[in-house]
Amino acid sequence: MNEYPSILLGEAVNQFASLPGMGRKTALRHVLTLLKRSDAEVEHFATSLTRLKKEVHYCRKCHNLSDTDLCPICSSIHRNQQLICVVENIRDVMSIENTGQYNGLYHVLGGVISPMDGVGPKDLEIDSLIERIIPENIQDVILALPTTMEGDTTNFYIYRKMSQLTASCRVSQIARGVAVGNDIEYTDEITLGKSIINRTEYKA
Amino acid sequence: MNEYPSILLGEAVNQFASLPGMGRKTALRHVLTLLKRSDAEVEHFATSLTRLKKEVHYCRKCHNLSDTDLCPICSSIHRNQQLICVVENIRDVMSIENTGQYNGLYHVLGGVISPMDGVGPKDLEIDSLIERIIPENIQDVILALPTTMEGDTTNFYIYRKMSQLTASCRVSQIARGVAVGNDIEYTDEITLGKSIINRTEYKA
Repeated sequence: MNEYPSILLGEAVNQFASLPGMGRKTALRHVLTLLKRSDAEVEHFATSLTRLKKEVHYCRKCHNLSDTDLCPICSSIHRNQQLICVVENIRDVMSIENTGQYNGLYHVLGGVISPMDGVGPKDLEIDSLIERIIPENIQDVILALPTTMEGDTTNFYIYRKMSQLTASCRVSQIARGVAVGNDIEYTDEITLGKSIINRTEYKA
Repeated sequence: MNEYPSILLGEAVNQFASLPGMGRKTALRHVLTLLKRSDAEVEHFATSLTRLKKEVHYCRKCHNLSDTDLCPICSSIHRNQQLICVVENIRDVMSIENTGQYNGLYHVLGGVISPMDGVGPKDLEIDSLIERIIPENIQDVILALPTTMEGDTTNFYIYRKMSQLTASCRVSQIARGVAVGNDIEYTDEITLGKSIINRTEYKA
């Protein structure tokens, strides 16, 4: 006998188990949960995936996911249209939106430069970022890429491209330092060192 | 702006997040993984769910999941057809199959008697179990239900029904005792007490 009593069941479990970090036991549990639901509910689950894949757009300006050609952020009149925050992926957009501290536009690169993984500048939305600067009269670019070697490389690449293009647009990167709530003694040396170099003036 | 940049995305995340033990961040991660795959792959994922729901059978004898009217276990000539193992759900069937220690048939109850949850004997496949005993000439019934109050109640109910029906069919329950690899000192008192009462003869 096979691992599963039914080939259809095994197939559905395989599909779930193909998702990152999902084991076969958890996959089976999810499939059996769906099996207990009504036909309409399972149909709805399946349709929501195929519809998403077929109908979702990537915003033509910032490359964020969107239901329309231009995403709600890019088309909002309430946002600062001269400020772009550069992020790796759409999850980063959601995280920054959740802070409530940012009111500008975004630009989603779709990854970071990583020669080890064969990802070069041409595989990312870097050219399309540079092409936005002059026509949209962008005054400020904030680099919010991961604090890794790849993120740093991408930061540097974008910075160089920007400085070749114009001197009037400011380029900054998000602050690196000790996370809020963290103890000094448990912070790694590199972060702690950077947090001392990049210290900010104390304001009461 | 909403939590998600796209309504379609939010809908797909909602569907995943409705599965047990799946948080919204994990759900989003899964949806974005699917979004990176090809149309055909996402279609395949969705179809495997709807096909499973529409086409899967429950075996008419043991109520296990099956692609056919009679499951591979019930229709196998290599299995002991006079031995039934009673389990709560199809995952238990798979677990017991994986031990490689059992060669009889199964009967899946679909739950255990639980007045607190409004589950009575009529909601389970108990009558259909009793109806199998005489026609199939079953000699042995092994109760492999969970070692909970509800499992014990169900065990007792089936035992009583069986004893009203016939005296020729043996009813047993799986051994309860200290799990293999467990320390005595960390085993709870009830289990340890039962393991002493139900001690087995030492065989070298």
